[in-house]
Amino acid sequence: MNKKIFNVFFREKPTMMLVILKNAKNPIYASSLAKQTDCTYSHVVKVLQEMQKNELVEFEKQGRLKLLTLTDKGNQVTEHINQIISKL
Amino acid sequence: MNKKIFNVFFREKPTMMLVILKNAKNPIYASSLAKQTDCTYSHVVKVLQEMQKNELVEFEKQGRLKLLTLTDKGNQVTEHINQIISKL
Repeated sequence: MNKKIFNVFFREKPTMMLVILKNAKNPIYASSLAKQTDCTYSHVVKVLQEMQKNELVEFEKQGRLKLLTLTDKGNQVTEHINQIISKL
Repeated sequence: MNKKIFNVFFREKPTMMLVILKNAKNPIYASSLAKQTDCTYSHVVKVLQEMQKNELVEFEKQGRLKLLTLTDKGNQVTEHINQIISKL
């Protein structure tokens, strides 16, 4: 994948959040997603809330922690993103 | 399509250039693409050059004008973008 052309069309960090969530075999924590995308926790949570509103991701609260999984819709969208990444 | 969530993942204007090129029944001019995306001509040309480098689009020069068409690769990428837009 050519990162320069990817960044012409995509906002890298929110898009990589979807890709990481899809690749994860188990639900992951928002804090882990922040670390993997090199974002602040508060930025990740803001993006995740927008994704949740649009039914791309589901939260499961574990005390102060949020466990994340993609919804079916989130999986479908991310599958198309992966297809684009494989072509660029 | 929800424009807010679209803009979480995509850069709107370059992405819409692909969509407009795919929807066009005939090759279109860069100047027309600039008008349709509300971009300056020089910005459109800069983005198009990056797309051409990555074999998403082909130019055919007609004097000072550039006629544009998507390549097969460009069509495939845009088809996935259209699928994402239809889900968001």
